[in-house]
Amino acid sequence: MTQFDKRNISMMMDLYEMTMANGYFTDDGPKAEVTFDVFYRQNPDGGGFAIFAGLEQIVEYIEQLHFDDEDIEYFRSLSLFRDDFLDYLRDYHFHGNIQSLPEGTVMYPNEPILTVTAPLIDAQLIETAILAQINHQSLIATKTQRIVRAARGRAVSDFGARRAHNMDAAVYGARAAYIGGAVGTATVLAGKQFSIPVSGTMAHSWVMYYDDEFTAFKNYAKKYPDATVLLVDTYDVLHSGIPNAIRCAKEVLIPDGHRLLGVRLDSGDLAYLSKKVRAMLDEAGLNDTKIIASNSLDEYTITSILGQGGCIDSFGVGERLITAKSDPVFGAVYKLVEVRRGDTTIPKIKVSETVEKITNPGSKRLYRIYNEEGKAIADLITRADEELDLSEPYRYVDPKKPWKNRFFENCTARELMTDVIVDGKRVSSPKQLSEIRDYVLKQLTDEIWEEEQRFENPHTHYLDMSPLYYELKMSLLDETRNA
Amino acid sequence: MTQFDKRNISMMMDLYEMTMANGYFTDDGPKAEVTFDVFYRQNPDGGGFAIFAGLEQIVEYIEQLHFDDEDIEYFRSLSLFRDDFLDYLRDYHFHGNIQSLPEGTVMYPNEPILTVTAPLIDAQLIETAILAQINHQSLIATKTQRIVRAARGRAVSDFGARRAHNMDAAVYGARAAYIGGAVGTATVLAGKQFSIPVSGTMAHSWVMYYDDEFTAFKNYAKKYPDATVLLVDTYDVLHSGIPNAIRCAKEVLIPDGHRLLGVRLDSGDLAYLSKKVRAMLDEAGLNDTKIIASNSLDEYTITSILGQGGCIDSFGVGERLITAKSDPVFGAVYKLVEVRRGDTTIPKIKVSETVEKITNPGSKRLYRIYNEEGKAIADLITRADEELDLSEPYRYVDPKKPWKNRFFENCTARELMTDVIVDGKRVSSPKQLSEIRDYVLKQLTDEIWEEEQRFENPHTHYLDMSPLYYELKMSLLDETRNA
Repeated sequence: MTQFDKRNISMMMDLYEMTMANGYFTDDGPKAEVTFDVFYRQNPDGGGFAIFAGLEQIVEYIEQLHFDDEDIEYFRSLSLFRDDFLDYLRDYHFHGNIQSLPEGTVMYPNEPILTVTAPLIDAQLIETAILAQINHQSLIATKTQRIVRAARGRAVSDFGARRAHNMDAAVYGARAAYIGGAVGTATVLAGKQFSIPVSGTMAHSWVMYYDDEFTAFKNYAKKYPDATVLLVDTYDVLHSGIPNAIRCAKEVLIPDGHRLLGVRLDSGDLAYLSKKVRAMLDEAGLNDTKIIASNSLDEYTITSILGQGGCIDSFGVGERLITAKSDPVFGAVYKLVEVRRGDTTIPKIKVSETVEKITNPGSKRLYRIYNEEGKAIADLITRADEELDLSEPYRYVDPKKPWKNRFFENCTARELMTDVIVDGKRVSSPKQLSEIRDYVLKQLTDEIWEEEQRFENPHTHYLDMSPLYYELKMSLLDETRNA
Repeated sequence: MTQFDKRNISMMMDLYEMTMANGYFTDDGPKAEVTFDVFYRQNPDGGGFAIFAGLEQIVEYIEQLHFDDEDIEYFRSLSLFRDDFLDYLRDYHFHGNIQSLPEGTVMYPNEPILTVTAPLIDAQLIETAILAQINHQSLIATKTQRIVRAARGRAVSDFGARRAHNMDAAVYGARAAYIGGAVGTATVLAGKQFSIPVSGTMAHSWVMYYDDEFTAFKNYAKKYPDATVLLVDTYDVLHSGIPNAIRCAKEVLIPDGHRLLGVRLDSGDLAYLSKKVRAMLDEAGLNDTKIIASNSLDEYTITSILGQGGCIDSFGVGERLITAKSDPVFGAVYKLVEVRRGDTTIPKIKVSETVEKITNPGSKRLYRIYNEEGKAIADLITRADEELDLSEPYRYVDPKKPWKNRFFENCTARELMTDVIVDGKRVSSPKQLSEIRDYVLKQLTDEIWEEEQRFENPHTHYLDMSPLYYELKMSLLDETRNA
């Protein structure tokens, strides 16, 4: 099989999912129903939140989940699985339900972001595919949003394909970057697949191919007179690149009624060079020519460049965006929270030596709580069988200070999880990517405190619990102590 | 298009490749021939070398490179390209030659690792796909080899799929990890696609699903009596997990003539716990039960654990391997080194403010030089049109100390680059993955100095030049100074 062939991504699983499913098969597999929560424990880069992305690919995967004959034969070749289990897989499709945050939702540690309620085997087989998609796209969407914030209104484009961790990372990374606020991508396959705006002009090889820099610029400008962005650092930005770019504008573009759209800096001290370049362009009457910068940028270098007064109109961001270099692992996990056998419901908790790793047990609901100004002041977990009523002051528990009497007053609540898969079928049509991108921006503009959006010591969003939910968690902890 | 559909990875390119190719089309595109070198500038993690991986996927890509009607229509929709250029793409296939290091070769900064010699347009269109594949797989192969070295003979398995940067990163990452010395992977899709050994037993959810830990262990052992590896950290390793594992061995496995294959630790202080666990297992007569460790491992934590006398038999390594967390960007670049128009050959050099970024111009050959003991003492670049003769003492130039008179005496040379694509066609059959893996190990055992393999301040491998090649480079630098 080659990279061009159709691939069955149902096989994107860890082997232990199969050994467990095969193990469950003869006991409880087809009978018991379970609930797994996906959640994560830490925001990347010490940030105040993350962006949930990758849902559309998960829905697509769940709907098409199946095993081909060659997959079954591969499993058989491992001599690990019962024949009746492999036969069962032959006509297998997913039977359960999935609830999830809408894609693009601002999310916080330790709250459920996606919940699978399904027969035991169904829930077990989909762990890795779901986690890999959420982990990758949420990582890149969150990283990009940080870079976009640092750029303070200037455009950020994804230039990262060549340093991505292979093709999917380039393509789904470009999708996630767009959700996170990038204006577009240089990656053609992503542009075509997801209708993301694409851009791109020239590499150093274009400039080096011709006998001199001016000839290279002139040939490009003649071919793309309305989209001429010249790469000016092949030889020497201030002594060759910019003088040749200005000459190209004056001798080639302007006489034919065109303007020089931009110049691109791809090396050197971008703060210093961009100020010099701006002055030279302005001096030549090219006040409308944009300066585009690239070269190992991220939120930290962009903040530094702009803090020094760098004159940059847009940023092309490559390796540090597409690999989330400063923190390249998004650690969402998939944990069992409830088992149902017949009429018996058993909430499950995973204890741990470290308090932070104790899971939130049971089926639950998740709300975002807003104050009168519409700002999100906390998230709240309740039991699934409670009704939330904020028309009166509502006492909640802050699990870090459970002894305090705290109330939500004059607040409203939005339930965050919505049905995406019911009985194995998608229940809502795919969203436009631009719609998801707008939703991210709207939350950050209208709902999310500035204090959670800063890079240094951001405010920690509260994750509160209803009194009943807190009681459930504590009683399960008690049981494990007594066990 | 969904993730399950066939994808045309020919579209895995940056848009600028198309704008340049379209720009060249009417001028020199079909006439001029060019040479591009792929090389990188720094070993990951400050190491002494890297491992070249991803070649098989590049050959596959080059052979199948083509544009479908829907790709052409997508390009047309961008209103950037000439119709005759888009027509030309309709029946396009790659026409050039590619030379490369054999996959698995130990490689060093600033030397060519893959060279494309092709018509201008052909060479331009393949930049991003080649770089992404080399950058990703070389990154993971190199990282894995570091982890394998740290494990000092103990098995290392890839457990990383859920934290990989999407599906290709999991699958081609598993391939690269196997090349780098991993014994196998947990990722089923990779195991099936590349015949990599797969392994996997149970998650915490298996243990949590049953009413108590012993029942969970017993049910697993009955199903996999010859492959029972028990995850012992769900509740409490020393007070619950290991006692229950020992009980499972004695009551379930041993009476039926089986042994307990292993226990897995997935949290806590692995150095401390593994010593305690070993003692408890030995005390119970389970001297043959293996201890497997996982949880945020890499070459640094493994070195530390083993340095403290940790009793671990094999390592499952996830997120820090599959993302190369400590240094997740492999920076191979694609640079124009020569242009040929008719009978004229013009070597090209990219100068830069920083000496390290000056490229090595022109068509060249690359040799590895061995001393009488068979140790690789240096790599040597010569002009393509020179013959290397080491039967006599051979004067070479160390470009960092060009004033010195240095000689190779009693040495032999191996030319490193071999033809992989000639006239657009593969010229050798694909290698078995195990063959590539063995080649890596053989070089590290027989050829590469220990001093280049250590993690702290490794020896810097010499990249020397023939006198004629050094003269070429200096004369081109002189020309740019006078330009």
